[in-house]
Amino acid sequence: MPNSESEMIRTIRERAKRKRGSVALGIGDDCAVLRPRAGEELVVTTDLSLEGTHFLLDRHEPRSVGHRCLARGLSDVAAMGARPLAAFLSLAATTETPQRWIDEFLSGFLALADRYDTTLAGGDISQSRSGIIADVMVIGSAKRGRAILRSTARANDIIYVTGTLGGSAATLERLLAGKEPERRAWSQRHFYPEPRVRVGDFLAKRKLAHAMIDCSDGLSVDLAHICEESGVGAIVNRDLVPIAPGAPFAQALHGGEDYELIFTASPKARIPVELEGVPITEIGWITREQGRKSGVYLTDLRTPPQPLEPRGWQHFRNKP
Amino acid sequence: MPNSESEMIRTIRERAKRKRGSVALGIGDDCAVLRPRAGEELVVTTDLSLEGTHFLLDRHEPRSVGHRCLARGLSDVAAMGARPLAAFLSLAATTETPQRWIDEFLSGFLALADRYDTTLAGGDISQSRSGIIADVMVIGSAKRGRAILRSTARANDIIYVTGTLGGSAATLERLLAGKEPERRAWSQRHFYPEPRVRVGDFLAKRKLAHAMIDCSDGLSVDLAHICEESGVGAIVNRDLVPIAPGAPFAQALHGGEDYELIFTASPKARIPVELEGVPITEIGWITREQGRKSGVYLTDLRTPPQPLEPRGWQHFRNKP
Repeated sequence: MPNSESEMIRTIRERAKRKRGSVALGIGDDCAVLRPRAGEELVVTTDLSLEGTHFLLDRHEPRSVGHRCLARGLSDVAAMGARPLAAFLSLAATTETPQRWIDEFLSGFLALADRYDTTLAGGDISQSRSGIIADVMVIGSAKRGRAILRSTARANDIIYVTGTLGGSAATLERLLAGKEPERRAWSQRHFYPEPRVRVGDFLAKRKLAHAMIDCSDGLSVDLAHICEESGVGAIVNRDLVPIAPGAPFAQALHGGEDYELIFTASPKARIPVELEGVPITEIGWITREQGRKSGVYLTDLRTPPQPLEPRGWQHFRNKP
Repeated sequence: MPNSESEMIRTIRERAKRKRGSVALGIGDDCAVLRPRAGEELVVTTDLSLEGTHFLLDRHEPRSVGHRCLARGLSDVAAMGARPLAAFLSLAATTETPQRWIDEFLSGFLALADRYDTTLAGGDISQSRSGIIADVMVIGSAKRGRAILRSTARANDIIYVTGTLGGSAATLERLLAGKEPERRAWSQRHFYPEPRVRVGDFLAKRKLAHAMIDCSDGLSVDLAHICEESGVGAIVNRDLVPIAPGAPFAQALHGGEDYELIFTASPKARIPVELEGVPITEIGWITREQGRKSGVYLTDLRTPPQPLEPRGWQHFRNKP
């Protein structure tokens, strides 16, 4: 059984007491207080992580769960070209959850928060009747008018992706098949994904990207979001997609939770091949017309481009 | 079974499309974008509501659940003397949840949001393995330095409370006993609590209150928070506590979910007996010393004040 609610809040407050930047008031009142600087705008995202749906108690260690819950939000902030500022954690555990699990969950959460100068500024604690629940909100800051949207891709833009794709899904598949995943660097992308905060910040500061999204549901789904919101199409060169070691091509196209960034930029923009230690790969280009389907087509440059069905994760469509 | 995630997001986006004030970008990107005005600071709160813990599917109609989930956050914002700006909803339903339940939940949520000019600016949709989960974040705005904290009560302050106390808990007790609650005005405080946003705003604008909290866990618990954070004590005159019709005295002291405001003000401050149609009642005063217990004492003005144990709701202490 976990500690009482008030003990838990006291501990979390103690562990999260370092306030930074625009956080004027953290845990301990009805609300946290943020004081944005002049010319700053705030970006806000929330991500719900549920035991059994987003993580498995017997496969993911609590540190990894805490890390992953926060990484989702940091990645959304990165995808706006913003810098994270504050996080809020709504956590529900059952009476059977050991306090040690919660402590290690927090260690994973706070270690990642610390690395990106993000203050845990508030949240809520509750008792769950079944399964652990963590909803994480992250607030970031961007210069006014500089946030990079999904809706601003332009025809003839080049499409880029950071890092490699499919590694997280490949690891998950092994986990679900009961295989202990090999302790390789790339399996860490599943357990401890690194949100591309510095890359997003770099692109925004230098106004290099037209549109951006993070690859959380899979390339085929997330690139389709850019197409839909921008009213454009996309052609992906299948030979250019950076496949994670050990992952099949299908998982690079449809596997989720890599938390890489997909962005589009003018063909004239000088995009480095590596940013902040992360490889940047050109994978295709934006076209004028969205076409009939999701807007995303796959080509091998020899035969006509074929529609790429969005087959990443969708709640209430896929079987859990 | 609910609609697919993408259909659900499309519907919610359509229903929530009216953007207001500082919300520059709502649903549809990785993050929402807020543009605070100069001299504005933001207050942020999150509240997790779980089926079985915070609401009962067979006792609370979906409209009431939607209303209550948001009311919790609006009440926290009111307790800072801030005005709500944007809300974010993380919602998880099971494959058995009817889409109609979700639609009516949203109707209750959005009707309340509309009344307080609050934009539903983002959130997350997920599949739950058991039980409906709603985590709601509300962001409000206050003038810089004007947010009213828990930690700034002063000795000799008068303690005030809005409305009446215990009505929500009394209704809940009847619900749990299987009795259909009487359809009276006061049972509405349980099903459709009215966050005291206008009262909070009034007090902040006129700088009338020193400290404030909303009464969500019960007077004995919430007043103890003010004492703890401010390092003071409180004496409550038992004859002055405004008891809701039909509620026993104990529920006025310890019953939660009334979402009234408890605030302290200088004895010199001219606090009206009614604000924005809500009665304001003086219930006691702040003392210099917190004492040994929670800081809150109860008196009948004839015998020495007795410590008032904080007996409101605490997760992982009370049996659910």
